[in-house]
Amino acid sequence: MAKNEKIPENTLFKDIVSHAKEYGFVFQSSEIYDGLQAVYDYGPFGSELKKNIKELWWNTMTRFNDDIVGLDSAIFMHPDTWKASGHIDSFNDPMIDNKDSKKRYRADVLLEEKAALYEKAGDLEKSAALLKKMGQLLEAEDLNAVRELIVAEEIVCPVSGTANWTEVRQFNLMFSTQIGSLAEDSNKVYLRPETAQGIFVNFLNVQKSARMKIPFGIAQIGKAFRNEIVARQFIFRMREFEQMEMQFFVRPGEELEWYAKWRDMRMQWHKALGIPENKLRFHDHDKLAHYANAAVDVEFEFPFGFKEVEGIHSRTDFDLRSHQEVSKKKIQYFDPEVNKNYIPYVVETSVGCDRLFLMLLCNAYTEETSGEEENQKTRIYLKFHPALAPVKAAILPLTKKDGLPEKGQEIYKKLKRNFNVIYEEAASIGKRYTRQDLIGTPYCIAIDHQTLEDNTVTIRHRDSTSQERINADALEEFLHKECSFNQIFDQLD
Amino acid sequence: MAKNEKIPENTLFKDIVSHAKEYGFVFQSSEIYDGLQAVYDYGPFGSELKKNIKELWWNTMTRFNDDIVGLDSAIFMHPDTWKASGHIDSFNDPMIDNKDSKKRYRADVLLEEKAALYEKAGDLEKSAALLKKMGQLLEAEDLNAVRELIVAEEIVCPVSGTANWTEVRQFNLMFSTQIGSLAEDSNKVYLRPETAQGIFVNFLNVQKSARMKIPFGIAQIGKAFRNEIVARQFIFRMREFEQMEMQFFVRPGEELEWYAKWRDMRMQWHKALGIPENKLRFHDHDKLAHYANAAVDVEFEFPFGFKEVEGIHSRTDFDLRSHQEVSKKKIQYFDPEVNKNYIPYVVETSVGCDRLFLMLLCNAYTEETSGEEENQKTRIYLKFHPALAPVKAAILPLTKKDGLPEKGQEIYKKLKRNFNVIYEEAASIGKRYTRQDLIGTPYCIAIDHQTLEDNTVTIRHRDSTSQERINADALEEFLHKECSFNQIFDQLD
Repeated sequence: MAKNEKIPENTLFKDIVSHAKEYGFVFQSSEIYDGLQAVYDYGPFGSELKKNIKELWWNTMTRFNDDIVGLDSAIFMHPDTWKASGHIDSFNDPMIDNKDSKKRYRADVLLEEKAALYEKAGDLEKSAALLKKMGQLLEAEDLNAVRELIVAEEIVCPVSGTANWTEVRQFNLMFSTQIGSLAEDSNKVYLRPETAQGIFVNFLNVQKSARMKIPFGIAQIGKAFRNEIVARQFIFRMREFEQMEMQFFVRPGEELEWYAKWRDMRMQWHKALGIPENKLRFHDHDKLAHYANAAVDVEFEFPFGFKEVEGIHSRTDFDLRSHQEVSKKKIQYFDPEVNKNYIPYVVETSVGCDRLFLMLLCNAYTEETSGEEENQKTRIYLKFHPALAPVKAAILPLTKKDGLPEKGQEIYKKLKRNFNVIYEEAASIGKRYTRQDLIGTPYCIAIDHQTLEDNTVTIRHRDSTSQERINADALEEFLHKECSFNQIFDQLD
Repeated sequence: MAKNEKIPENTLFKDIVSHAKEYGFVFQSSEIYDGLQAVYDYGPFGSELKKNIKELWWNTMTRFNDDIVGLDSAIFMHPDTWKASGHIDSFNDPMIDNKDSKKRYRADVLLEEKAALYEKAGDLEKSAALLKKMGQLLEAEDLNAVRELIVAEEIVCPVSGTANWTEVRQFNLMFSTQIGSLAEDSNKVYLRPETAQGIFVNFLNVQKSARMKIPFGIAQIGKAFRNEIVARQFIFRMREFEQMEMQFFVRPGEELEWYAKWRDMRMQWHKALGIPENKLRFHDHDKLAHYANAAVDVEFEFPFGFKEVEGIHSRTDFDLRSHQEVSKKKIQYFDPEVNKNYIPYVVETSVGCDRLFLMLLCNAYTEETSGEEENQKTRIYLKFHPALAPVKAAILPLTKKDGLPEKGQEIYKKLKRNFNVIYEEAASIGKRYTRQDLIGTPYCIAIDHQTLEDNTVTIRHRDSTSQERINADALEEFLHKECSFNQIFDQLD
């Protein structure tokens, strides 16, 4: 028996992407029009998986945890929001054009690629020096010097082969559009690049209307948009994506304690989803953003390497203070316990819903080979946690006659109100099992002639393929127990 | 006792809007920046209500009904999508500017207002003639004649008082933005004005990957955007809104049968939410859209009159055929039962999630006056269906001592994993009941000294304010039963 680790990694990722398309998880957006780059659609099973992920995160935040309430703010926000947050001024990538090929590149990526070449050639010192120099120039925003460095390093455009470069310019990653129809009040608005700001501008509205006392949190799930220059790796980096963010408001001075708490709780959560410990790690930020006094990523080992799925950040009072300054509205909390007004500090947990989806898909995808050398069989299945699996059970009458379909329909109709279940009577039972393996259904319920006699059914378990008989009347309770989020919560207590 | 109907309607709507803000249902977007017109955010209780609405609709479509699967397609789509759908060419409003005031108006609205003046003055014939004439000109797209009609009717700008009008021009309601960073492949894309097209372009992907057989449906929930010129009535008409659409694909010739079926099923669903029959009505379209051969609205009586909440449309094969033409990709279904390839016909149900939210809020808002003339008391509560209410139960220890809070916390911790419940121990029990009434919590669970003796609690019912004692161990089952979507499904069977 050979497991994932024996498959070459690049092949593995290609297999996962094509599996995702073929079995209704993820389609390229507007595929009939040859697609829209870095935008994807979730298919019948993908949309159920994504829904389950969102539901689990929401319930973890607002139900399992105390003192966190939800919010659902709009994608459009007043443009001053992005002045206060710093996105208008500094949410940029440095770009450079080659005058001969007319191709545009990220200046930092060109330099990073050059550094990688030095490294490949064994000159680690030269590589490190180049990266350090680049970091200093970008931090100082000395774009002319960045251009000079590109020229000095003799970097040429891979298309034209020349070093005929334009100046380096900043390119803002926010999408903008015009709102309003009246010519004179037509306004530029942005598609939010993060959901967090919707929480900050509503801080007082939420705190007052839900009568929250610090420490408390506000959780939100929603779309965000970034005009990524290098969008890649399937749904890992998309131009339209979904965030699940929670801002936890605390007393100034207590933020690092809460930061440590949330960092550990979030890691525990990822493990509770069934991700093995060795596939997860923390990655502390070497350099902190201007608003943070502590920051860490939770990384998962994708087939293309360890990459961020979630960030936990101690954001200080930067955002609330900026909004107070720009809006000229007082954003403070009166703390009755210390009898003082203050701007709360914020610890944030920010996870990409699509990245979580990709993590679960990559972790679930299993190729298992069994049998002798000359007669090997490969079984592919998606070993999703039953609480997250898109379809919970398939009801499969063994044959199409003798009243088995009727009995199957009876069971199906009873279960389908509460669970996403499938009924299927075509094809052999083996083919139907295979089909459910491919979409990750944890339980197949087979109806046979014995069912008509003693009302028992066979439950076939996806991962072990082992079978057991239980009474049909116990199915609802069985699924309620096995597919419940409590299975995950129990590991968090 | 006086109910809603005695409150003057305009006051009632104002009361509902301010209630929605004060109690954490709906906030104006970016309020600290003085708001963004026609955009709103959902607060802690609003986001839970909206979530419940979406969940119920999704489960009704994909679980209660057979043969409907879900989809979650992106907001960004290839621009050719909107060429095929007709939105680039004809999703317009006719606009006219006054040269003196520089104000812009919808030409049809100016004429409608003039017709309303005739009607008010008793000249119904003149009013009807004007509307008819306007309709003909707009249909013929004779914008010059529309302008001449405005001048002939001596319509003046309410700001400048002059009839110094520009030409009438078409104004497209889609928001657009630029995607991509490379100068040469920068592309104009639109924020989708409806979710339906995401379903149409994915028709074959979904049908094949989920192995669906006609008749079957695809359901989707998602944001859509329209740059409305006259956005109004709170969350009724917003520039950013959420749609819940289901496209049901049928054999050509069978569409009107399915249309009638869906029309009736959808009306039944609205009634099952607890909306009284006399507050709902059908409104057949007088004039069908170019793609439809039958269309009807489900209207609810808002405080500002009967207005559309849902549309059921028989869209023929217009959309799939257009996409086939523009994309040059064959979009056909092979029907094994009739052994033929064809482009399926489509019956669509399209409901506005925000309008449904507003309908439920308006229907729930109740002011009840009791007592003698000189000593009247008014109780305000939101009578949401328990399956939709944002908070299912509040756990309230009668006093803060004698171990009652500990017992309350024990019950709270047990329930909160599965239900959105609140624990509150501050203030008098009466004040706490009032608070729960205002956010529409159907059950208050009071813990008193008797609880410590016999493990019974008092359940206080929101609408009747009647109380009953039950065993604390039976609470979970009680809430499961009362707050289950099955309470709604049972009325649909």
